[in-house]
Amino acid sequence: MSKGEEEVKLLGAWPSPFVLRARIALNMKSVRYEFLQETFGSKSQLLLQSNPVHKKIPVLIHGDKPVCESLIIVEYIDQVWSSPPSILPSHPYDRAVARFWAAYLDEKWFPAMKSVQGAKGEEERKALMQQLEEGLALMESAYHSVSKGKPFFGGDRVGYLDIAFGCYLGWLRVIESFSGLKLLDHAKTPGLAQWAQAFCAHDAVKPVMPETDKLIEFAKVLMAKAPPK
Amino acid sequence: MSKGEEEVKLLGAWPSPFVLRARIALNMKSVRYEFLQETFGSKSQLLLQSNPVHKKIPVLIHGDKPVCESLIIVEYIDQVWSSPPSILPSHPYDRAVARFWAAYLDEKWFPAMKSVQGAKGEEERKALMQQLEEGLALMESAYHSVSKGKPFFGGDRVGYLDIAFGCYLGWLRVIESFSGLKLLDHAKTPGLAQWAQAFCAHDAVKPVMPETDKLIEFAKVLMAKAPPK
Repeated sequence: MSKGEEEVKLLGAWPSPFVLRARIALNMKSVRYEFLQETFGSKSQLLLQSNPVHKKIPVLIHGDKPVCESLIIVEYIDQVWSSPPSILPSHPYDRAVARFWAAYLDEKWFPAMKSVQGAKGEEERKALMQQLEEGLALMESAYHSVSKGKPFFGGDRVGYLDIAFGCYLGWLRVIESFSGLKLLDHAKTPGLAQWAQAFCAHDAVKPVMPETDKLIEFAKVLMAKAPPK
Repeated sequence: MSKGEEEVKLLGAWPSPFVLRARIALNMKSVRYEFLQETFGSKSQLLLQSNPVHKKIPVLIHGDKPVCESLIIVEYIDQVWSSPPSILPSHPYDRAVARFWAAYLDEKWFPAMKSVQGAKGEEERKALMQQLEEGLALMESAYHSVSKGKPFFGGDRVGYLDIAFGCYLGWLRVIESFSGLKLLDHAKTPGLAQWAQAFCAHDAVKPVMPETDKLIEFAKVLMAKAPPK
């Protein structure tokens, strides 16, 4: 069996934006994989063994080797299944820029997104919503400079930054629904609004992007367990 | 001028572990660069223009293009100056493992290191020291599995994870000096103790690794400005 033909398993859960990254990357490369879903609130033995440091999904298990952390998994998939389409840009500078924005989203923007539903009071919630909007304004301008008039951050094809950012779209819609505020719209973020549509309609994305209604139901269950203060 | 021959500038400051990463990578590739040091407590116009999102060093300016974030800079250097020695492991799994530990160090381990001197009271300080030690125990075991009996995480040569981890050695010595506790020693972490010695003696590292005494002086100035609570 060649390396690319070893068994592939993905430990995950359907509502996780990080698991979605791995699923989109696997779809782009037409890799067959077994999707092993963790039960919410508990961790399987296989997960604890495969990611003993963080104990978090996603974990990609390729043959007998576990690969952890969503963006590391995406890069791994791109390198192991190296036939086109490539996910990372080939030019070093484009690659550095894509990595920069992906890290910005995970480290600076996502924490605001994660906290907004559990915000302590209206003032904190407003501040977090503002952070989210400022981040989207930054990403709007990044979109124009990175995509250079093409539909995706990756140009004509979905690439690394499309996957890194696009995985959050479902949860962004949940926040829009709960807050009654449109965050990605054609007036404020015209480039991103168009990009989001193209991204969600992409063959590698559409079958795995969670439906907003299902995510809303899931979020309600979460909030019932840990209600906002 | 070919791409690799464009002018290279590094915005930095000698005590920064993150700037050190870029300097080591540039040394490994024998790249000539101008080192533009920021003054502590203020930010140059060039820095604000080159990294408007984070306004942080290091920034590598290659020709007219700024590259931000230390690990992204290291990968950029490895890809642009692609002649040996390579910095990233070539095998996708080894690469994923190196990235995993580098991210662990920056996201989980370094925050404890950063906070230990400013800890509020003895209890918090002890908890942070314990986190540091637990992290080092994890890295000791990672060292044995990743280096496979060779001197470096990168095998016979200094690689990505060596740079990612080794950049913290100077500050680790400062913490050892202030606390009177040996964190990296031949009894508790024999592999890492040996590795640290080999790393600091390496040709690409030795000329740029800050002296511990100078770092201690610098730390005292910092602490005088923001004394521990």
